Order: sequence, then structure tokens, then C-alpha cells
Amino acid sequence: MSEIRELYGASTGNSVRAAIALTEAGIEFTPRCLDLLSGDQRTPEYLALNPLGKAPTFVDHSVSPPLIINQSNAIIQYADEHAPGRLSPRGPSAQRYRVYDRFYFFVTDVIAPSHAAFFLRQIGQQNASAPLSRRALEHLMAAEAFLESEYIAGDAFSMADISAFTFTRSVRDQIHWEKWPRMARWLALIAARPAVKLGMQAFESKPSS
Amino acid sequence: MSEIRELYGASTGNSVRAAIALTEAGIEFTPRCLDLLSGDQRTPEYLALNPLGKAPTFVDHSVSPPLIINQSNAIIQYADEHAPGRLSPRGPSAQRYRVYDRFYFFVTDVIAPSHAAFFLRQIGQQNASAPLSRRALEHLMAAEAFLESEYIAGDAFSMADISAFTFTRSVRDQIHWEKWPRMARWLALIAARPAVKLGMQAFESKPSS
Ligand SMILES: N[C@@H](CCC(=O)N[C@@H](CS)C(=O)NCC(=O)O)C(=O)O
Ligand SMILES: N[C@@H](CCC(=O)N[C@@H](CS)C(=O)NCC(=O)O)C(=O)O
Repeated sequence: MSEIRELYGASTGNSVRAAIALTEAGIEFTPRCLDLLSGDQRTPEYLALNPLGKAPTFVDHSVSPPLIINQSNAIIQYADEHAPGRLSPRGPSAQRYRVYDRFYFFVTDVIAPSHAAFFLRQIGQQNASAPLSRRALEHLMAAEAFLESEYIAGDAFSMADISAFTFTRSVRDQIHWEKWPRMARWLALIAARPAVKLGMQAFESKPSS
Repeated sequence: MSEIRELYGASTGNSVRAAIALTEAGIEFTPRCLDLLSGDQRTPEYLALNPLGKAPTFVDHSVSPPLIINQSNAIIQYADEHAPGRLSPRGPSAQRYRVYDRFYFFVTDVIAPSHAAFFLRQIGQQNASAPLSRRALEHLMAAEAFLESEYIAGDAFSMADISAFTFTRSVRDQIHWEKWPRMARWLALIAARPAVKLGMQAFESKPSS
């Protein structure tokens, strides 16, 4: 592990997607676990890195002053730009914009309504949250049509797979998999990737001795 | 106007941001107005371009087969990559990732909850939508701190300004501007940009004769 780059995060989709992207890109980093329930994200030290007190935050100490990135998707873009070709195809092409199209579909049409539903549940509005959870799941189902090939945006792994993965995994018990055979195969394929496994474990709390 | 590139859209934030980005990047296109209330987005012709029946859609006929992009943010990325330096600084740098950080902040923390609120209102859940609208507005207010310089991500216009603009404008009557002097100055600055004005008009219906 390298102390030169740190990723502060928790076991949430935003942090885990950032960890997966960095790992897929071959960028070493030290995970720094935040306990969001205990308020680690609101300490003065953390607020100096992330003024809104949210997870994740990426810090690259190899440049001076250190580079600080707050938004999970901006960390994914950083990973993409530091390992050209691994998370998106190089150069402008139909294939490149298909990756972007599907990446943003998951970011804005699947993850975003599910975050909004989560927020409503947090403030005690369970009923209001249900239609948003349903909408996220309905949109996700459109992904069956994306899977003409093995991956979400064609025959190579990309950042679109990362954006699709954590949410799909989180709702795997609500899905009638027999109707979504391509998605079922895709989920197993992504879950088995070494970098995905490592990224998913980045913020798992160590068992206490 | 060029018939070589078309942008299908409506007078909604998603379409208008795409139109502004293309215009700021100097990419000529013909706007194609969709009447969403009449269901123009669900004709077989449109569904062939955009299977989910959403606005906007960008079509570039200069390549074969034509390049089709559905997601508004992927269209913004296309514009950015076709006019390097105009919507984001070139090359990896702190400045570049600040643009991405703030761009994604508006996409996922401001526009996304406001879209979720809009969806709940559409299905008749006015009460449930209110906390999400409030959240979008609260997050927007964080932007006052972003404005150390003239623009959202420093001293040059960028895609972060585009992502911030349409929502800010749409809530301008709900803002106590005396508390947000930098935002007030910024909104006027962006609204006065020729490309922003053109982009905003792209999908305004022509007065009937
Ligand atoms: N748009 C941001 C959202 C970050 C965010 O909201 N993170 C949540 C966890 S998923 C958080 O830190 N919540 C703790 C809090 O609000 O106190 C991103 O994609 O990074
Ligand atoms: N994430 C997509 C969202 C597109 C979207 O939902 N567009 C709305 C208008 S803002 C639409 O076309 N609604 C019409 C419909 O759903 O029938 C994007 O950013 O382009």
C-alpha cells in the first residue's frame, strides 16, 4: 500500500466505486475508513479536506500542494485519465461515447433516484421513498438491453460497469433473475474481477481481535 | 446552422445544458424541438435514436454510422473533448479536477435531488417532493464558497458553470440574493454570455404567425 495516495471512505456505493476505479486503474492508495455513524466526516481535520463533510475524498500527496478530489465520479475520472484505455477507450469514437452514455445513465438515472430515496428514508419518509426506489430499479432493468456483449458498454470492461455494479449488487435480492439472464451473467462476471473484489473490501472494518 | 449535427431536446435543464455546452464549444448543430407533453419522445423514429424516450439526443451525421449520444452529460463531455480547453483545462492538474469536482457536485448533489423532487410532483406526491427540493437548494448554497474567483471552478468559464447555471436560474425567485452576493454576480455573468443565451433559446418554440 502506498501512503502517497489516500482514499477516505466508508462502505457506501460512492466510496466503493471510487476504490474500484482506482484499483482497476492500478493506482495504489491507502484506504482511510470513516465511520459515518460516529461523525468522522464532521471532524475539523476531515472538513479541511472535504468542506461538505461527505465521503469519499481522494488525496494525492505526490504533488504539491496535495491534490484533493471530493466527488466520487471525479475520482473515477481521475482514475480513467491516469490509466488511459483501462476505464474508457482512448480518443473520440462511438465506443467512447457509448461508455460515457451508459456511465451517466447509471449515475443520473439509477444511482441518483436511489440516493434520493435513501435521503427520504433517513428523514423518516419511508412511503415517499418507495416510488424513487422503484424508479431506480426500473431504470436498472433497461440495462438488460445494454448487454449485447459481455460488458455494459461493449466487449471491454469500462467505467460504465463500475457505475452499474454497486447498485445492482445492493438490490440483487429484489431482482427476478430468470427474466434478466444477461444481467445475471454480467453481475457474476464483474463481482469476480480481482480489482472489484479488492475495491469492495477497501472500507470493510477489520474484525476486532 | 449545420444539418450535420442535430440536438433533439426541449426547454428543460438537461437539453439546455447540452445546447449551451455545444454552443460554448463552437460546435454547430440544428436544434430539433420535442414536445414532451405531446409525446414526441415516444414516436418510433425518436425511440430508434433514444430507446428510453428521453430528451436530449445528439446525432452527429459527419461520421458513419452516425454518432448518437443520449445522456445530457455525455453530450457535455463530447463538447469538452471536441474543443479542448474551452469547457475544462487540458491535461491533468489540480485545476482540471476542481472543474470535475464541481461539475459532479451540481450533477449529483443539486440537479439529481431536484429531478427526484420533480418526479415525485409528477406522480402527485407534492409533500414528499418538498424535502428534496429543499436539499437541492441547500446544496446550491454551498456554491457561494466555490466562488473565490469569478467562475464556479476558478478564473475561467468551465463545464462546472454550465452544470450550475440552469438550476440556479430556475430557482432565482426563491433565493435571498443579499446573502449570496458572489452567486448573484456569477449568475448575471453567465446569463450574459452569448453562447449561454443562444443555448437557452435553442428549444424555445417559435411564436406562431
Ligand atoms: N455526490 C457525492 C455524494 C457524497 C455523499 O453524499 N456521501 C455520503 C455517503 S454515500 C456521505 O458522506 N454521507 C454522510 C453525511 O452526509 O454526513 C459523491 O458522489 O461523492
Ligand atoms: N439522465 C438523462 C435524463 C433525461 C431525462 O430524463 N429527460 C426528461 C426531460 S428533463 C425527459 O425526456 N422526460 C420525458 C419523458 O420521460 O417522457 C440526461 O441527463 O439526459
